[in-house]
Amino acid sequence: MPIPTLYEIRQAAERIKPYAHRTPVFTCASLNRQVNAQVFLKCENFQKVGAFKFRGACNTVFSLSNDEAQYGVATHSSGNHAQALALAARLRGISAFIVMPDNASTVKKAAVASYGGQITFCEPTLRARETSLARIVEETGATEVHPYNDYRVISGQGTAALELLEDIPDLDVIITPVGGGGLLSGTAIASTELSSRIRVLAAEPEMADDAYRSIQAGIIIPSINPNTVADGLLTSLGELTFPIIQQRVEQIITVSEAGILESMRFIWERTKLIIEPSAAVPIGLLLERKVNLDGLRIGVILSGGNVDLESLPWRENPS
Amino acid sequence: MPIPTLYEIRQAAERIKPYAHRTPVFTCASLNRQVNAQVFLKCENFQKVGAFKFRGACNTVFSLSNDEAQYGVATHSSGNHAQALALAARLRGISAFIVMPDNASTVKKAAVASYGGQITFCEPTLRARETSLARIVEETGATEVHPYNDYRVISGQGTAALELLEDIPDLDVIITPVGGGGLLSGTAIASTELSSRIRVLAAEPEMADDAYRSIQAGIIIPSINPNTVADGLLTSLGELTFPIIQQRVEQIITVSEAGILESMRFIWERTKLIIEPSAAVPIGLLLERKVNLDGLRIGVILSGGNVDLESLPWRENPS
Repeated sequence: MPIPTLYEIRQAAERIKPYAHRTPVFTCASLNRQVNAQVFLKCENFQKVGAFKFRGACNTVFSLSNDEAQYGVATHSSGNHAQALALAARLRGISAFIVMPDNASTVKKAAVASYGGQITFCEPTLRARETSLARIVEETGATEVHPYNDYRVISGQGTAALELLEDIPDLDVIITPVGGGGLLSGTAIASTELSSRIRVLAAEPEMADDAYRSIQAGIIIPSINPNTVADGLLTSLGELTFPIIQQRVEQIITVSEAGILESMRFIWERTKLIIEPSAAVPIGLLLERKVNLDGLRIGVILSGGNVDLESLPWRENPS
Repeated sequence: MPIPTLYEIRQAAERIKPYAHRTPVFTCASLNRQVNAQVFLKCENFQKVGAFKFRGACNTVFSLSNDEAQYGVATHSSGNHAQALALAARLRGISAFIVMPDNASTVKKAAVASYGGQITFCEPTLRARETSLARIVEETGATEVHPYNDYRVISGQGTAALELLEDIPDLDVIITPVGGGGLLSGTAIASTELSSRIRVLAAEPEMADDAYRSIQAGIIIPSINPNTVADGLLTSLGELTFPIIQQRVEQIITVSEAGILESMRFIWERTKLIIEPSAAVPIGLLLERKVNLDGLRIGVILSGGNVDLESLPWRENPS
């Protein structure tokens, strides 16, 4: 399968249209003042399940043939991808088998269950997750849907940038966070094919800087014991996302933990938007003025809004 | 001065248009399911200064003649009205004198100061606030702008309902919270003049139910030691708002503290909108199903989004 192009992203947009929200684009005068630029926030926190992940999961689920789809879909994830896949499957009327570590938070378990996902718990190691998933796939015939290392997922994630550039065509720069690279790859394809001059930047937590190091090294360097509040960005680049990022992303810029928290807080206070820490990483890049973007028109994908309101990261957890 | 009509509210809308946001209207599938109705949320949390109060303050400040305006405006408030008046004055290039109790939170002091308000601190009693304000008005010649008992303020607040009904014309019901009654009065005028069939409801905290009791009694009963998390709704009805509410509001319905908190949490989690407790009171009315609104189209003014993120009301405060 060749690398997706704008054509596949447009197809994905048509495919998910009946199910996904076309999310709004927000601006914030005080953010613009601080950054000395015009920032356009694509609010994927308002997407179904509260994150862009629904786009990729939905595109993949509705790309399956009836023969494939009848056995359901499966993944191992404790995050937004699990919820996204469960909801997409329910919308198609098929099963979603979700492998989750038994130490996943109650909130996350409840969320997946509320979308009808059938959860299998396993030990909290990558090996246990992969083994459990392989067993389920063998037993059920379900199609595994990887959270990012899948062209259908990448094309789905690219639809957020497609919509943003339809609404605000003359962006100079577009920025996403980077974890496994699905959102970044899809964004990079959509943006560079729609505009010959747009610059694609990525923001990554300093404490999980495997993508930064991978691009420097020219090979995928796995993330080892990443430790960041941006818990959506713990994964490593995949073999499908890495070359797209190598080719189309100008620069990956790292952001400190303090910068992530301050940016999340800034967005909550000034825009009244609830965003999750991962979504704050690109804002950190802007507020820390790590690259000179003075006077430019900057699109940012606010990737999601799923946070545990019981333990907000800027407060001590009293429990 | 006669009671404002739709004409004054339309004038206010024109007057504030260059300065205020036309806020978006959100919907939420899970809220609709829970309420068994179609709910349209007018997002005044996205308004300038984070609350509808900017509409009334802005309309009043820009209604002043140059002769009046030159001496500035003044009020006593520690809440959203203080910020709103400070910003409106700054936009007109005049002074705003704000009397605040010396025990007001640091966040609130900083907010008023950041909009250029000139703060005078006083003891935290109504008497001290009124005395300080009278002195400032005498010394400076500033025009006092009451937070709600003023027809210009009422007309300004009515512009939120005007916009909502422009966007969603066929509402069956419109609901606002009620404190002093400025938002409710303006909403009631705009709604009942735009639609002959719309029902206007108000939601009030059980623990600050002076408006409910006033309407029952047929006279204004002042709020005595109200104790509610909805700190924007502590004030009593005024002599200008009371008759408008008597005439045009179908019913005032009270909501428990637990209901307010649960509703605020529900909105944060499901819609990713940051709303303040006062804005959650109408949602509590809906979620508690206190009136049968099955199948109806319901507009709700989400009045504001200013909360102290350090001490969210559903958590123990560890400090």
